[in-house]
Formats: sequence, C-alpha cells, structure tokens
Amino acid sequence: MPVSPITLFFDFSSPYSYLASTQIEEIAARHDRGIEWVPMLLGPVFAATGSRPLVQQPLKAEYSLRDLQRSARYFGVPYHHPQPFPVATHQAARVLVALQRARSPLDVEWIHKVFEAYFVQGQDISAMPTLHMLGQQLRLDATQIDAWCADAAVKDQLRANVERALRAGMCGAPFFVVDDEPFWGVDRLPQLERWLQARF
Amino acid sequence: MPVSPITLFFDFSSPYSYLASTQIEEIAARHDRGIEWVPMLLGPVFAATGSRPLVQQPLKAEYSLRDLQRSARYFGVPYHHPQPFPVATHQAARVLVALQRARSPLDVEWIHKVFEAYFVQGQDISAMPTLHMLGQQLRLDATQIDAWCADAAVKDQLRANVERALRAGMCGAPFFVVDDEPFWGVDRLPQLERWLQARF
Repeated sequence: MPVSPITLFFDFSSPYSYLASTQIEEIAARHDRGIEWVPMLLGPVFAATGSRPLVQQPLKAEYSLRDLQRSARYFGVPYHHPQPFPVATHQAARVLVALQRARSPLDVEWIHKVFEAYFVQGQDISAMPTLHMLGQQLRLDATQIDAWCADAAVKDQLRANVERALRAGMCGAPFFVVDDEPFWGVDRLPQLERWLQARF
Repeated sequence: MPVSPITLFFDFSSPYSYLASTQIEEIAARHDRGIEWVPMLLGPVFAATGSRPLVQQPLKAEYSLRDLQRSARYFGVPYHHPQPFPVATHQAARVLVALQRARSPLDVEWIHKVFEAYFVQGQDISAMPTLHMLGQQLRLDATQIDAWCADAAVKDQLRANVERALRAGMCGAPFFVVDDEPFWGVDRLPQLERWLQARF
C-alpha cells in the first residue's frame, strides 16, 4: 500500500519554515516518505487566528530573534535575520506553483534557493530582479518567470493552496500534515518523526 | 564555582508548564543544576504581548487541544484537559510563595500536587476547598493555607515574581532562564539541555 507524503504548508517569509526546510528531507528519507511542499501566504492565517508575525509582538519580538539564531545553531544551519522583514512572497510562491504544475524537477531547488536568498544572503525575495537572478541559476528564463507570475491559473492555484491550508487547520508556519495528523512548528519535528515511526 | 540554577517561570493554569514540570527535574539532575521554581500569573504577560490563551484563539484552539494530548503521550505523562479552563491561580501560587518564603521542603511537592490536581484529575484549583484538600495531603493546615493566601507579604512577593518575569522577557509559559539565556516553551527543552551541555 503506498504511504501518503508529508504535506508541508509554508510561506517563504517564515523563518521557522526555512529552518524546517533544512530538516524535513532527511526525516522523510529516513521513513521512506515523500514530501508535498505547499506554498501559501500567511496573511490569511494571521487574519483567521487574530495574530501577526512574532517579530511584531512586544516581548515575543526580542525573544524570537534570539530564538531563531539559537535554533539555527541547534540545527547547524546558517541564519541571518533579513531586513526588511517580512516581505511579500506571492511572486516567489507563484513561481513554485508554476514549477509544480509543470511537474518540473526544479521545484525543490527553487524552494531552497529562495529560502537561502532571504534567510542566509538577505536578498529581497519580493523583488522580481531577485527572482530573475535565482531563476537564472536554475536556467529559468526571466520572461518565463514573469509569465508565470501573471498566469491566472497559477494565481488561482496559490489562492487554492491558502484555502486548503486553512481547511487543514493551519494556525502558523510551518504546518505539517501526516496521515491527517497536524503538526505546527519546526519544534514539532521530533513528534512528527515519532508519528512516522509508531503513529503514537 | 557554584553554577546558577535553572529558573522556571510558570503559571499553574498553563498546560505546557505542567508538561515541563514533569521533565525539568530529570534534565536538571543530569547536569547537576538546581531548579528555581518561580510561580507567577500569566495575565500580565498576555496583556504585555497583546495575546491570550491558545485555547481562546481561532484555529489555534483546536490545534492546541490536540497538540497537548499528543505532547503528553510524547513525554509519557497523563493529561486530561480540564474544564473550566483556564482558572484563577493566584491562591495556589500564594501557597507556593509562602512555602518558598518559609524554606519549606514541601514546595516542589506542592507544585506537582497542584498541577496533577488540575491537569490529571480535573479538580478546580481556583477553589479554596481544593487547596485545603491538597494541603491536607502534605499535612498543611487549612487555617495556615488561608492565612498565607491573605498575607500581604506573600501577595507582594507574587506581584514581584510577575514583574521579574516580565523584566526577564517572559512572553509565554513555561519560560526558562539559564545563565541569562531565555527559553520559551516545553518544546525548547532540547535546546535548553544543549545549552547545559555546551553553552552552544
């Protein structure tokens, strides 16, 4: 019987999603699971939960900036908190949606490239020239990227992803679903792995 | 050189603090650290951060009830979500403050008794009869408990604990401080332990 993949809902402006993106592939591989990467936009989740980014909340802002640096050290990956933060991510997400729709093998490379550009190199991933440059590294044409970003079907799919995330109960990013079991946060990866082992 | 203890700020109505209370003693023992338990009241932290209990937030409510059950299974401890939730905890906290002021060896037993009464047995820990009954199990007199709860010095100390927690940057419960390094959440225990090992 084929097993279902790990579904990962994320926004490219979510630092804990970036951290999760550096860990989930090893976990999935250890348990012979695929990963379904679902790009979405966090704005509607913040609206639904009545929340906002941690770095805009008193006390939590200072803590989370420190926690992000420490969490990155804990996982052994680089992290530089970008400025400005957060930024609009719908264009970067649309490119990913288009790659997924085209069943391009470049989709996961795009995810890592965009996350690294923002959270390691501090590049403005809301700007089209940045996306063009990242695309160039994957031999994607700037004209193609622009066309994808303007494609109504791609836009619709991204909106559908957001609606699907909310239906799945997404209350923050990253949000994982495995066999209908939801996990919120990179800090739930140990519980997610226990689930993959034993469905505890 | 004596090492500083692990400081743990908590509210008796915080379910993740209850979970942390079942884990922190083993961690501290493994690293020859003491624990400074600091009872406080979460209300002022919610006011300062502009937040409220998870179970009162759309989407997060449903998720957190599920996450609490799963987290308890993960740690191998019992959990039954109490009703009503949350409840006022200032009286239970005052008894703990009084025990600590008296340097009573019963202070940690009181912590575990109150947490278990609420999160395992579903007793209303805001009610004085419940506190009297719990006290009885530790041979504490009901009259003594009432006197502690009315003691101005005890009340002042609890208020001072809240102010100290806010100064320490507490943005949610449980909140740990080790060697000036802050950790928020029972899910940060692995990072806290890494800190104790290597101050990474």
